[in-house]
Amino acid sequence: MVPPVVAYKTLETRFHRIALLSEATSVLNWDAATVMPQGGATARGAQLAELRAVTHGLITAPDIGDLIAEAEENINELDGWQKANLREMAHIRLKANSVPEDLVVASSRACSICETTWREARAEADFPAVKPALQEVLNLTRKVGQAKAEATGLSLYDALLDDYEPGGRSANIDQLFTKLRHFLPDFIQRVVDRQQAFPPSQKPIGPFSISKQKSLAKKFMAAFGFDFNHGRLDVSLHPFCGGIPEDVRVTTRYDEGDFTSSLMGVLHETGHALYERGLPLPWRRQPVGEALGMGFHESQSLLIEMQVCRSREFLEWAVPIMKEIFLGSGPAWDINNVYRLYTRVEPSFIRVDADEVTYPAHIILRYQLERALLNRDLTLNELPTAWNDGMGDLLGITPPSDREGCLQDLHWYDGAWGYFPTYTIGAMTAAQLFDAAKYQDTSIEPSIAEGNFQPLLAWLSNNIHSKARLLNGPNLLINATGKSLDPDVFERHLRARYDC
Amino acid sequence: MVPPVVAYKTLETRFHRIALLSEATSVLNWDAATVMPQGGATARGAQLAELRAVTHGLITAPDIGDLIAEAEENINELDGWQKANLREMAHIRLKANSVPEDLVVASSRACSICETTWREARAEADFPAVKPALQEVLNLTRKVGQAKAEATGLSLYDALLDDYEPGGRSANIDQLFTKLRHFLPDFIQRVVDRQQAFPPSQKPIGPFSISKQKSLAKKFMAAFGFDFNHGRLDVSLHPFCGGIPEDVRVTTRYDEGDFTSSLMGVLHETGHALYERGLPLPWRRQPVGEALGMGFHESQSLLIEMQVCRSREFLEWAVPIMKEIFLGSGPAWDINNVYRLYTRVEPSFIRVDADEVTYPAHIILRYQLERALLNRDLTLNELPTAWNDGMGDLLGITPPSDREGCLQDLHWYDGAWGYFPTYTIGAMTAAQLFDAAKYQDTSIEPSIAEGNFQPLLAWLSNNIHSKARLLNGPNLLINATGKSLDPDVFERHLRARYDC
Repeated sequence: MVPPVVAYKTLETRFHRIALLSEATSVLNWDAATVMPQGGATARGAQLAELRAVTHGLITAPDIGDLIAEAEENINELDGWQKANLREMAHIRLKANSVPEDLVVASSRACSICETTWREARAEADFPAVKPALQEVLNLTRKVGQAKAEATGLSLYDALLDDYEPGGRSANIDQLFTKLRHFLPDFIQRVVDRQQAFPPSQKPIGPFSISKQKSLAKKFMAAFGFDFNHGRLDVSLHPFCGGIPEDVRVTTRYDEGDFTSSLMGVLHETGHALYERGLPLPWRRQPVGEALGMGFHESQSLLIEMQVCRSREFLEWAVPIMKEIFLGSGPAWDINNVYRLYTRVEPSFIRVDADEVTYPAHIILRYQLERALLNRDLTLNELPTAWNDGMGDLLGITPPSDREGCLQDLHWYDGAWGYFPTYTIGAMTAAQLFDAAKYQDTSIEPSIAEGNFQPLLAWLSNNIHSKARLLNGPNLLINATGKSLDPDVFERHLRARYDC
Repeated sequence: MVPPVVAYKTLETRFHRIALLSEATSVLNWDAATVMPQGGATARGAQLAELRAVTHGLITAPDIGDLIAEAEENINELDGWQKANLREMAHIRLKANSVPEDLVVASSRACSICETTWREARAEADFPAVKPALQEVLNLTRKVGQAKAEATGLSLYDALLDDYEPGGRSANIDQLFTKLRHFLPDFIQRVVDRQQAFPPSQKPIGPFSISKQKSLAKKFMAAFGFDFNHGRLDVSLHPFCGGIPEDVRVTTRYDEGDFTSSLMGVLHETGHALYERGLPLPWRRQPVGEALGMGFHESQSLLIEMQVCRSREFLEWAVPIMKEIFLGSGPAWDINNVYRLYTRVEPSFIRVDADEVTYPAHIILRYQLERALLNRDLTLNELPTAWNDGMGDLLGITPPSDREGCLQDLHWYDGAWGYFPTYTIGAMTAAQLFDAAKYQDTSIEPSIAEGNFQPLLAWLSNNIHSKARLLNGPNLLINATGKSLDPDVFERHLRARYDC
């Protein structure tokens, strides 16, 4: 019998090792997305699978279960952070043990095949071509979800959701989304009508050299406290934030004809990066020291991008810098015009290009459909029609083909079921956090107009970043804002910004 | 009892996993040398150490010993490649088990401290500042060498050498270097005198933009068969060839005032890259499928750089391409001048900048000194003087400070004892291979003048690359060239090229 604190300390050592292997995985993923030549893809897949297998082996090692049990028996000898760390360890262990290895392998293989098939099917707008592969993914995802549901006592959907949004429950999401669902269609129509009365917004005319765009992006990142001694900005097809807290890797893609979209993308990823950088140093490489789920991570990126950087206050500071770097002049560079550009609302087919007002509609649709598919209330044969009907109901538009419809996102085809709602949970959380931050520190908003993000970052650091997983998401939000996730705050933000 | 072929097949599976982890390590090392921000260094060190620990654990797992024993008992059921693979596995296992883990850790820590201290000491030309740390490295290296010597039955020095040059023995190196030692000083003097009678060579005047230098380098790499779908060219402080066969990562550094040195550096690394790319696909991720030791690897880079690319034949094809890219004109771009530039001989202090004639003198000096230090025939107190005396004897020059003397190379400070001789073994092997190749296929030399390297590459592929570790180095050389390593061939190459 190992003494309890020794058991706990042994667990810390084990999970430290597991975290180091995850860091290696993170570097390999960054490399694959940014610099790896195509011919290295198969080998990279094998390397990543091996790292996954080693990590899985460390988590499921028989003695870990005993160590957890021993530490739990004497939990009162642990402090609050240690208790939370033990809770996270037990949860990771439970999840890892819940799915039989042959099912993990089968599911991973099916996703890989489906992803490849999907790339071609999307290009050809040919949903039937990928349907059998997607059916296989769906069947195996159901089995995986069932296994996780049995281990955790959650419903099938919630067991899947929990991987992305720890503690997230569909019962809550239903409530939140129902409110939004009622509010949105009408509101979107009013905003669109109202914006049509404005002078049409003009895009600044390029070309905007990539080197200037990059230097502008780095200037803004630095203003937000991004430390280039501990991070990089690179190019990838799909922008993301990877790496590790000591070496955060942000990526973007540039369009020489339009700098505005890449710039907001960089600021979005910078929000993710600041979260990672702000995680508590004493708990590095421990489960409790990790960022909360996808919803909270997205709240940090959306807080920076949507709440801060698309605000008039921010643009007052930022537009003169943009003008100076690109030698811009004329009405397109007027702050009012840039603000209109960055807050333009228009129903459109593609989620990743959507504005903050129509975006939740895309998510509500996907959430409804993925639950119906998992619960066998909808078949894949019916999916394209259900998608298009939903787009009609929610946004009043119909995709010209499945490429702009149910084929557009990788998620389902790659096995990420239960992921979509976290985007809108993130948007709502961002609104609520920013609202509370401004209320608690009235210097935050005026500072933004001066390009001083220190008060905001201090608030985020104290209330969110440094807390890591000490609390679960719902409790952290209550701690920071005084209440649970409240869709009214998000609605109020939209009403205020779009004046409708 | 596992059936023997099953035992062997199980070993293949295990070593396949080990190789995948080495590949991950290779990507992490490339990243650290090329793109990682400085602030990521500590974390990267921890990630690499963890991967090393996992790999070490897999190699030393208790059942691997049993599996090897069982496979060896029934070795006749294996074919030639499998037998060689089993031999390599047993050797890797023997080495990994020979050094106690606490000694590995202590040695690794001492090297890390010494390397850091060395960087400052070199900048300050302050050998005493790093002497204590180096003494610690030397003491621990002796212990490691002793442990390996006991396990392998080799002498201390040979046990260390064997890590870099499998099958290499100091008795052979003594013979080879003694011949060189007698030949070189006089020869160098004659070449220098002779070259002084030539018109002085002129460097083409820049600036040479990095983008043009890179595009020239890539053009030449492609001409040698480097496939950019399976590799990259990047920048690092110290040029190297890393990555894996499916994704070879070559690096260089550019000087806008002089393209000639970076270009030869790239061609050198391309030689390494072609070796990696040419390793036999059916034996990927098995010990027998790896490249031979450092000597053979260096022979492949030096064959391309020194034997091929500094030849008049190559420059006949290459100089017009250089002129075209850089819009060069005038006498500096004359082929004879460029040839004189690329074959200029001059005793100098810094090994990495040395020409092919004086380079072996640098190596002989280090080889003598490191053996004397390991054997306690020399103390670190005496090292600076011994170094300077040796430079006087071998090259007739005396370093102005230890920065240009015994502080210049990282190797000893980083624990790489027994490494240096492989550079000159590589140079001699390159000469012997190229000599044999030209003799066996008379189309090789004329093709080079036309920029067609296919005949040469076919010979290298058949005789060296595709053989991997099927044979040991000495036997592979006999197979390819009909004889053991013969210093006369290298001497003949130098006499012919420098006409002395």
